[in-house]
Amino acid sequence: MSIFPALLEKLIQQLSRLPGIGQKSATRVALHILESDRELAENLARSLLQVKQSIRFCSRCYNFTDQDPCRICQDESRANGILCIVEEPGDQLAIEESGVFKGRYHVLHGVLSPLDGIGPEDLKIAELISRLNGEGIKEVILATNPTTEGEATVSFLTKVLSDKGVKITRIALGVPMGGDLKYMDSMTVRHALKSRTTVLS
Amino acid sequence: MSIFPALLEKLIQQLSRLPGIGQKSATRVALHILESDRELAENLARSLLQVKQSIRFCSRCYNFTDQDPCRICQDESRANGILCIVEEPGDQLAIEESGVFKGRYHVLHGVLSPLDGIGPEDLKIAELISRLNGEGIKEVILATNPTTEGEATVSFLTKVLSDKGVKITRIALGVPMGGDLKYMDSMTVRHALKSRTTVLS
Repeated sequence: MSIFPALLEKLIQQLSRLPGIGQKSATRVALHILESDRELAENLARSLLQVKQSIRFCSRCYNFTDQDPCRICQDESRANGILCIVEEPGDQLAIEESGVFKGRYHVLHGVLSPLDGIGPEDLKIAELISRLNGEGIKEVILATNPTTEGEATVSFLTKVLSDKGVKITRIALGVPMGGDLKYMDSMTVRHALKSRTTVLS
Repeated sequence: MSIFPALLEKLIQQLSRLPGIGQKSATRVALHILESDRELAENLARSLLQVKQSIRFCSRCYNFTDQDPCRICQDESRANGILCIVEEPGDQLAIEESGVFKGRYHVLHGVLSPLDGIGPEDLKIAELISRLNGEGIKEVILATNPTTEGEATVSFLTKVLSDKGVKITRIALGVPMGGDLKYMDSMTVRHALKSRTTVLS
């Protein structure tokens, strides 16, 4: 028997099923909500419902948006012919925050993963191909994550896009900033060596 | 300008203000909620509101409860004359989970902290004193955390309770299970040495 009231236990269980939140942090959050003003819980509850009600996928790039097409797809200054392909909306955020990419995005909503039964038809690949002509794309940057599935998706997309007359590039794999070679996995070190750049010749 | 819709940003900001949840995990949780069934958001929103509506403080021990007095205060088998004093409801949970304490609790809702302007009248100390006679308390276990404020609260309570005819005890301070002496702070090591127990004499 738990010492907490059933409704509090229920909230803790629901919170602990969210990604990255364990039993301990869920308890901490739930107790914090109980100890705070009623407004905190009410505002949070309202946001949860509003977000689900008003946010949809952009019908072009498949990122989350509250207007269709999304702000980036509507922004003509970003129609520079370069399309960056990412797995998930969160990946797009990371690239946007880097501040160096000025083109548009296409969110696949996953990667190829035969073991999980995820094939090309489960991803937004047909939608990607139909964008190439319509938007005059000259370069496609493959920015899936450097995992087995991400690399398999790179291979598949390279094959599928090979006859579309677009340049295909892949984000660089290597040692991350602040990384330490002695703690780096050997795949990363191998990539970092193979893709070494010339400093002085 | 954020690439996410304003409502999604708002949810991320609200989540990131919860304890132990940073900007990154708040983003992860918000994207997870967006990608999940509408029910997940609705159930979570409902629980947040229900918890705030139905959960109150127990009028005896001041733990959270959905019935007054709470289950532990109503349980006659726990009226063993021993009262465990904790700072917060979360601390009570930790003691309850240890499974060795069979008495009742009293939640202070904080510790003495002159720098933060928290004095005895801000804690449930008057309420504690009035329980001593009514419930025939023989022993009071001081289970505040071993911090400067927790220890100051121990000193204060010891003085206040000294003429009440109850035994006053303090939870043991020492090296935690799985702890490593070489990474332990010297206050803890000092306590562990001073409070050493005899194994063989």
